[in-house]
Amino acid sequence: MESAIPAHLITERSRPRRVPDDYAPPYPSFVARSRPQVQQVVMAYLGLQFRGDEPTGALDVLDTAFADSDGPGHHDRARQVAPDGTTDIVSIAYWDDPAAFERWFVTHRESWLGDAVRDGLGRWAEVLRPTVEEHETLSSSLGRPEGVAVLADGWSGEVQEHGYWGGMRDRIPLSQTDALAPVGSPVVERDGGRVRIRPHGGICLIRSGQDWGDTEGTERLMYLQDVEPVLRAGMEFLRDDGRTIGCFSNRYLTVVENGEPVDRSFGMSWWRSLDVLERWAESHPTHVAIFGAAMRYLSTLGPAARLRLYHEVSVVRADEASFEYVDCREGTGLLGAFAEDPL
Amino acid sequence: MESAIPAHLITERSRPRRVPDDYAPPYPSFVARSRPQVQQVVMAYLGLQFRGDEPTGALDVLDTAFADSDGPGHHDRARQVAPDGTTDIVSIAYWDDPAAFERWFVTHRESWLGDAVRDGLGRWAEVLRPTVEEHETLSSSLGRPEGVAVLADGWSGEVQEHGYWGGMRDRIPLSQTDALAPVGSPVVERDGGRVRIRPHGGICLIRSGQDWGDTEGTERLMYLQDVEPVLRAGMEFLRDDGRTIGCFSNRYLTVVENGEPVDRSFGMSWWRSLDVLERWAESHPTHVAIFGAAMRYLSTLGPAARLRLYHEVSVVRADEASFEYVDCREGTGLLGAFAEDPL
Repeated sequence: MESAIPAHLITERSRPRRVPDDYAPPYPSFVARSRPQVQQVVMAYLGLQFRGDEPTGALDVLDTAFADSDGPGHHDRARQVAPDGTTDIVSIAYWDDPAAFERWFVTHRESWLGDAVRDGLGRWAEVLRPTVEEHETLSSSLGRPEGVAVLADGWSGEVQEHGYWGGMRDRIPLSQTDALAPVGSPVVERDGGRVRIRPHGGICLIRSGQDWGDTEGTERLMYLQDVEPVLRAGMEFLRDDGRTIGCFSNRYLTVVENGEPVDRSFGMSWWRSLDVLERWAESHPTHVAIFGAAMRYLSTLGPAARLRLYHEVSVVRADEASFEYVDCREGTGLLGAFAEDPL
Repeated sequence: MESAIPAHLITERSRPRRVPDDYAPPYPSFVARSRPQVQQVVMAYLGLQFRGDEPTGALDVLDTAFADSDGPGHHDRARQVAPDGTTDIVSIAYWDDPAAFERWFVTHRESWLGDAVRDGLGRWAEVLRPTVEEHETLSSSLGRPEGVAVLADGWSGEVQEHGYWGGMRDRIPLSQTDALAPVGSPVVERDGGRVRIRPHGGICLIRSGQDWGDTEGTERLMYLQDVEPVLRAGMEFLRDDGRTIGCFSNRYLTVVENGEPVDRSFGMSWWRSLDVLERWAESHPTHVAIFGAAMRYLSTLGPAARLRLYHEVSVVRADEASFEYVDCREGTGLLGAFAEDPL
């Protein structure tokens, strides 16, 4: 058993974690471990938005850019269709060298967000740059990392800080000394169909995913019939009504590979601050239902469960996140929370 | 909105509470307020144990003692029948002046626990003396206090520290500066059918009750059919298997008045420490089910709900708790956890 916080980031706590030293989690979980040289990562969510069929070739520019020098160490792609029929295809790219990202973005930004490529489709970029102190991962299983964990050098052993409410905070190294409270106000700049948002500090992103590709038979049915609908209902609550509880935006996305959906999905949501995410997770009926469904599933299957779960959570300073939406529909991403006027 | 911790007990925190200053609980709750002169209370759980019919007059000695000088400021009585048919009638007496309790106990102890009154019935006393820093109360409703709250001088306004996991700890004044961790080991003294236990420090007692006397019609059916069976299942888990998770003893009791059961019940359980109680409440399937059932009930009924809920929680030093069992069956109270040998 080891701390989720890597040894080189452990500091004297001014803020105790929620569990005593002899706490034993009820089941194993793991975190991604990077070499100590990694000090900050970049997560770029790059969205293409359209109605109807996928525009042919619209993503080629991204694929070309990703393959260029200074391109991301890992990227994946996922799709969401909104109730009004709008589709977002989100390409998520990860760097563990912010300087490489900056060089890459300078070179390729215009090909995705510039005025010259505006063609009526929506395009957006939500970029955050958490330091390693501001960010945590968690995985139910070893092997086959997803998200930022793909960049890591390996896995921890079983970690202690999970399986209780507050574990998420306790895994973020900065929580050892900082309340991770929101500070300041967002700034919105609008220029016709282009909107830039610089958020307040302490804004929080969670990507939380599931991979049911290994499940078979009864387990697969249990996931699809008992768990997924409850998860979906929670995701739809956050999408439609999340702003009432401090969730600015929620997307529930299906991973696509070679253009086709696979048996992996994730929720991706922006929160005012970590504490409001904690409150939803701990006590909102929609997440208590998800938690209950997952617990019934996992306690029925025990160690035989082949469902894979992971998440990554970041809490960043104001200058570590930026949002830009070009010709997107109302309510896209943070527009719904911060820029309500129709475009 | 005010802190659950009374103003005269607020100190500079070395241990932050779990919620930020702008946290707003989702529904109102209240705590009992005592005058600042009250520094310590005494809670004496005095049990009579028998099989079959209630022995005539066996409780008269307690009733007489309670009415004597230095008697408790409040007492009530409740009954539990174990699966093997053993009945415990528990008289719970509260003092807000430990010196008065000591005088009273010196005078009346022998009439309850002494060798001279041993007649084959089981008798026991579980006594704790939490300081006001070591103890908290919570109530869903104003008026009609129960338990130690009856001794208080009144109610708080709406308090902030509730409605989230960790609120129980955050309401205990000592948690501002202390981890409330267990320390030391229990000491068991056996003398034939008499067993005395001095516990380790940090032992924790919760009394958590419900009063459905005001409910009618659909609400009453919902409580009795949807909530109570789930609550009962959780209580039975703690009674039968609680020791696996640090719950030494659980009783699920029905309040009796004039010898007859009324529409009030409570659970009363001893825990190794506050943190293991937190873990059960937050994540054990039996309590997650109770929490879910209560949430469905309360969200269906909203402010119209007439069910009344309360609890009181104490975490005490080793010298602030004492346990004595005379001619009790195996497993009674802390015997099950600390004195397994048959009597």
